[in-house]
Amino acid sequence: MSLITVGTMAFDAIETPFGKTDKIVGGSATYVAYAASNFVKPVQQVSIVGYDFPLEEMEELKRRGVQMDGVEIVPDKKSFFWSGRYHEDMNSRDTLITDLNVLADFNPKIPDSYQGAEFLMLGNLHPSTQLSVIQQMKERPKLIAMDTMNFWMASAMPELTEVLKHVDMLIVNDAEARELTALFSLVKAAKAIMKMGPRYLIIKKGEHGALLFHGDDVFFAAALPLEDVFDPTGAGDTFAGGFMGHIARTGDISFENMKRGIIVGSAMASFCVEKFGPTRLKEVTKPEIDARIQLFKDLVSFEIELE
Amino acid sequence: MSLITVGTMAFDAIETPFGKTDKIVGGSATYVAYAASNFVKPVQQVSIVGYDFPLEEMEELKRRGVQMDGVEIVPDKKSFFWSGRYHEDMNSRDTLITDLNVLADFNPKIPDSYQGAEFLMLGNLHPSTQLSVIQQMKERPKLIAMDTMNFWMASAMPELTEVLKHVDMLIVNDAEARELTALFSLVKAAKAIMKMGPRYLIIKKGEHGALLFHGDDVFFAAALPLEDVFDPTGAGDTFAGGFMGHIARTGDISFENMKRGIIVGSAMASFCVEKFGPTRLKEVTKPEIDARIQLFKDLVSFEIELE
Repeated sequence: MSLITVGTMAFDAIETPFGKTDKIVGGSATYVAYAASNFVKPVQQVSIVGYDFPLEEMEELKRRGVQMDGVEIVPDKKSFFWSGRYHEDMNSRDTLITDLNVLADFNPKIPDSYQGAEFLMLGNLHPSTQLSVIQQMKERPKLIAMDTMNFWMASAMPELTEVLKHVDMLIVNDAEARELTALFSLVKAAKAIMKMGPRYLIIKKGEHGALLFHGDDVFFAAALPLEDVFDPTGAGDTFAGGFMGHIARTGDISFENMKRGIIVGSAMASFCVEKFGPTRLKEVTKPEIDARIQLFKDLVSFEIELE
Repeated sequence: MSLITVGTMAFDAIETPFGKTDKIVGGSATYVAYAASNFVKPVQQVSIVGYDFPLEEMEELKRRGVQMDGVEIVPDKKSFFWSGRYHEDMNSRDTLITDLNVLADFNPKIPDSYQGAEFLMLGNLHPSTQLSVIQQMKERPKLIAMDTMNFWMASAMPELTEVLKHVDMLIVNDAEARELTALFSLVKAAKAIMKMGPRYLIIKKGEHGALLFHGDDVFFAAALPLEDVFDPTGAGDTFAGGFMGHIARTGDISFENMKRGIIVGSAMASFCVEKFGPTRLKEVTKPEIDARIQLFKDLVSFEIELE
């Protein structure tokens, strides 16, 4: 099975209460690829970078089974750059700088070699860009999942509404689910979103875990209680990457298997936040991932006999 | 096994985005008793009320196996009264009125008939009052749990520090755990609190579930995703009552059994918020409770094979 992942590959400058990094590789597709490549090969990357994106990063990803045919390299422009500062509670952040650079011209092309992929993860991009990717697929993937953000709800709601009709799953955070529907109750928001198109919905709640909705079924995955969250950047994309990696590896889109995918995604995200950027994701080993998944099992497991 | 519960029996006036009630029975010990009496008899109540507290409420509780020998009735004073208004998100509220009335003189006496109780739940009261109850017990209960609040951390920290040395378990919410320790990370706060005395700690996170800590063990219980939270008043006390009711019924204070207790407490709390005050707790049946506990199992259960 193969997984196409569309999104940014970029540089981030991050400031947290624990420290500061000037320029570190980031971008949604980078995190998705690092996470998913632990589970499925190939991961087929679609992105755009400038002349300044490190070749060794591309090579590192290729060694992990990430294909780069869909990554456009613009020779005379810089890569997308984002800079932000996290608040004490790590749940909120201020964006300091957003330099679109190459991203302003991003018009993703699905290479012929990617056609036939069963799984498609659309990172947070303009909804029209997301739709154009779906339209380029000659055979509809088995599962199309997408991320989005508040910005598009304010600036491109008609386009967002349109692309939602074409995907199977939406992956957003709680604030985004509320803004998309103008409903405070996440249960009500979930019902409203599933009427907009996606049959499956994941609502990420950061340190409070994640919810999976499908019809009348609900699954809740806890987040691991951590002593410190060093840097939350990329945790949501890493979650999506772990989830889609598991789904693509197994090829199974049953609700039961999606539950497992959410645990895998949560485990990967719990590594991501341990160090700056994708640093920890590059180090993590299979035995470490298995041990972390076991922690997630132990965290919530209980036996109760009903009389 | 019997359970002593010490706390307020009172009147509340509550305003939520869904409606308003002028004067409804409330108080921590009332909620604990309604919840716990589903699981264990007798529940041995220690509280104080004024001449205005409805006799039929006392009778209702007695029918459920709640003993009233420890409830002092002051003939010339009114019962404790609290009035509050919840904000849109239901996670925060403004206190409008606090009339201590009889509570100003509350000096709980443990009746002889209560001596020998194996379980003791100390509701949120002045820490010196909580300590005096512990000191009145001729035989130390098997498990002493206590609640507290930010107010005592600001006004009676030395007394709070003292009583914490004498209890087995502290049950607080996330904001209280953070304020008690001046630590933002709940994992770090938990470690610090367990050094202050309690071997067990429950941190309630409202709609985000609850955490149980003991040594290096952690358990997380999800909250049920609800369409509407009608009135959160008493949910925390109902949680504590369900928890202690289960523990007292089984007599088992192992970590594994405490996990079950937290699920039972969470289930009871999920009923509590469905209607104003303890209304829903008075209606709920054993089959409904069992079905709700099953929902909590289904919500978080997953099977994953590690290779």
